[in-house]
Amino acid sequence: MTAEIIAVGTELLLGDILNTNAQFLSQELAAMGITVLHQHVIGDNAGRLRELVETAKARSELLIFSGGLGPTADDLTKETVADCYHDTLVFDEEEWDKITAFFTRMGRETTPNNRKQAMVPARGKKLPNANGTAPGVWFEDGGRIAILLPGPPNELRPLWRAQAAPMLAAWQNCVLHSVVLRVCGPGESEVEAKVGHLFENANPTAAIYAKTGEVIIRITARAATDTEAEAACREYAKNFYALLGDAVYDEDVDGMEDTLVRILRGQGKTIAAAESCTGGLISQRITSVPGSSEVFGYGFVTYANAAKQQLLGVEPRILEKYGAVSSQTAAAMAFGALDASGADIAIASTGLAGPGGGTPDKPVGLVYLAAAQKNTVWVKKLTIGGRSRETVRLRASQQALDMARRLLLELLIPEARMFLRGENADFEAPALDL
Amino acid sequence: MTAEIIAVGTELLLGDILNTNAQFLSQELAAMGITVLHQHVIGDNAGRLRELVETAKARSELLIFSGGLGPTADDLTKETVADCYHDTLVFDEEEWDKITAFFTRMGRETTPNNRKQAMVPARGKKLPNANGTAPGVWFEDGGRIAILLPGPPNELRPLWRAQAAPMLAAWQNCVLHSVVLRVCGPGESEVEAKVGHLFENANPTAAIYAKTGEVIIRITARAATDTEAEAACREYAKNFYALLGDAVYDEDVDGMEDTLVRILRGQGKTIAAAESCTGGLISQRITSVPGSSEVFGYGFVTYANAAKQQLLGVEPRILEKYGAVSSQTAAAMAFGALDASGADIAIASTGLAGPGGGTPDKPVGLVYLAAAQKNTVWVKKLTIGGRSRETVRLRASQQALDMARRLLLELLIPEARMFLRGENADFEAPALDL
Repeated sequence: MTAEIIAVGTELLLGDILNTNAQFLSQELAAMGITVLHQHVIGDNAGRLRELVETAKARSELLIFSGGLGPTADDLTKETVADCYHDTLVFDEEEWDKITAFFTRMGRETTPNNRKQAMVPARGKKLPNANGTAPGVWFEDGGRIAILLPGPPNELRPLWRAQAAPMLAAWQNCVLHSVVLRVCGPGESEVEAKVGHLFENANPTAAIYAKTGEVIIRITARAATDTEAEAACREYAKNFYALLGDAVYDEDVDGMEDTLVRILRGQGKTIAAAESCTGGLISQRITSVPGSSEVFGYGFVTYANAAKQQLLGVEPRILEKYGAVSSQTAAAMAFGALDASGADIAIASTGLAGPGGGTPDKPVGLVYLAAAQKNTVWVKKLTIGGRSRETVRLRASQQALDMARRLLLELLIPEARMFLRGENADFEAPALDL
Repeated sequence: MTAEIIAVGTELLLGDILNTNAQFLSQELAAMGITVLHQHVIGDNAGRLRELVETAKARSELLIFSGGLGPTADDLTKETVADCYHDTLVFDEEEWDKITAFFTRMGRETTPNNRKQAMVPARGKKLPNANGTAPGVWFEDGGRIAILLPGPPNELRPLWRAQAAPMLAAWQNCVLHSVVLRVCGPGESEVEAKVGHLFENANPTAAIYAKTGEVIIRITARAATDTEAEAACREYAKNFYALLGDAVYDEDVDGMEDTLVRILRGQGKTIAAAESCTGGLISQRITSVPGSSEVFGYGFVTYANAAKQQLLGVEPRILEKYGAVSSQTAAAMAFGALDASGADIAIASTGLAGPGGGTPDKPVGLVYLAAAQKNTVWVKKLTIGGRSRETVRLRASQQALDMARRLLLELLIPEARMFLRGENADFEAPALDL
């Protein structure tokens, strides 16, 4: 099955907004095994829209539209597409009641224009919108389908997931189930090398998306029932677990911070952060998770050496002998955060985020991380070459959160060295290139 | 003049990457007064690409392509478009030398495929790429233009700005100059209401882009010389300054943190941050600016009340009497950060970011901010209704940075109240709805 995605809206043509709907719908269709041939963006112009719809309909079985379902006169998408799919629009009392109730809740009154949004196909189907006034629409004409969705992503995404995708799956005599694996490995290219062959599969499909510091693997299965589709996902996911092991840090979460907060809450433990080069990013990520106040009370952004001494008790002789960017300072910062906060574990960062300040000995991208618990600390050395300040900081924060996860779950912390409190040897952690 | 933007790449059709190039180019063309009629995304398929190019060329004077300039066999954009514009490609020794030098620097060897990237138009022009191996290309055929740009945004954007946009302006017998104003006002809708009429202008053009906590206004003038174009921008910018005053916080910067660090460096002053609800975001934003270590040494993420007492010396009786989310606690946190860090100014945040934890008295979105210097503190109360945790935190951090800017520049801090150290009245800042 081939598809085209058509976004309608002058604001897209002016660059006022980014077309995230096209990416979302492309990912969703790829997961369903549907091939997207074209994406289009077009303004609110009935003539150009009709021309595009006729061309696309002749060439592709499925057209998916976003936007153009508003109440104003220049929102012509529904009327134009109805005509191209040989359908007509009729006034729907039920949708109208929902619209008037919505306006009443907002303390506003409907205008005659709003009646346009209550028009639904005579032959096709309406797709109720739980988050806005414009219902989605499904047209069918001789085995060709058009699905119209509202433009705002917070309406389009739930409407797609709850209504359009299941209806499309049913039309293909199947249901869909997805599982999203989050992977934080030693390096993304290594992850891709290990599991690349698993992305060439018809059902379940699997796709990989790179994010700074991690990769996201989405597995989607089609089957006759949800139970079967989920079972197929689980079965296929085993291949990834077998090859990636505990680099798969979680399923169906938004990021490592979610996983870490969940683990801490489950274990009834608390964490503290002591940050130099990440400058508050680690604390900010942990506290971005709702409910994190149960597990996080103290963050120390010790950018200056004086702050490292004063707030974390890092000894001046350590800073003098090894420098602020060293295994020893990272370890001392983590122990200092443990002691000052009373938390169960503490993570620390110190490094050179750049772009300036590097030396041949200590280049930009050199970061030391530490994770401490009681009298033990693990130290990790990262060399993040040729990256922006933002990327260095993001990758460092990701690795620090992962060290905390591994410490809590008693997993091996790869490429890290373990030391005891008071051990003042001239130790050095092995380098991990990222 | 009308234009169409054509992005070439299967990875876009699969949703692997977001088409930020289309937004960037749309904004740039709008600023030049060029009307974008269509945006397209298409895969690496010569037949479909040719069909699209023929259609678009017949309808629009300017086609801009992104992507498809790679060295592999499926990168067919340059060959296909050359043919549609009745041009041919010839091998360019100078480009080839650059490619081989680039590979040598990376410690790699060229393959025969790479010679493809050194092919340039016989009649058209090449657009040298300072950040990658694929040069851009300019084709011209009977008053119709096609510009081909590499896909990676870090190559496309500088190449557009340095080569393609000036060439396009010259082709229209003019040069372009832009000035970007950053505005942090009491509310974005208010900003738009005040200056909305200024966006209906042919030359200079002005466009507004909303960002969380601020708006961005871009003024672009076309003139015969850069001096004239800049003068026209400056003259038009006066209208915005007249209406928005010191809500325009800077020009041509990436965000408020850049401005704040620049002011601090200029004045030789330092800042400290004490954060509860923003959880490290303020520190993280300040330290995201290169060179911020000169002006920022200490950040206190005091999520727990115990941390507020221990690190900032907030008195238990203040927390008991007024609560952690109060004007008094915010003021005490800011004074505490001043004292603990020795910084010249300190900013503090305490509030309810949500989604849970709100009460009728202290709802989600209630945030108190404070900015202190010596024995004086300004306190501001925000009520950020119906927003996500992320938005509440971003807006709060933005307002806190703006308070610091205003304090340093001795500007009025709107909607804030000033108190003296030791003043323990039952004060309350006025509420600012955002």
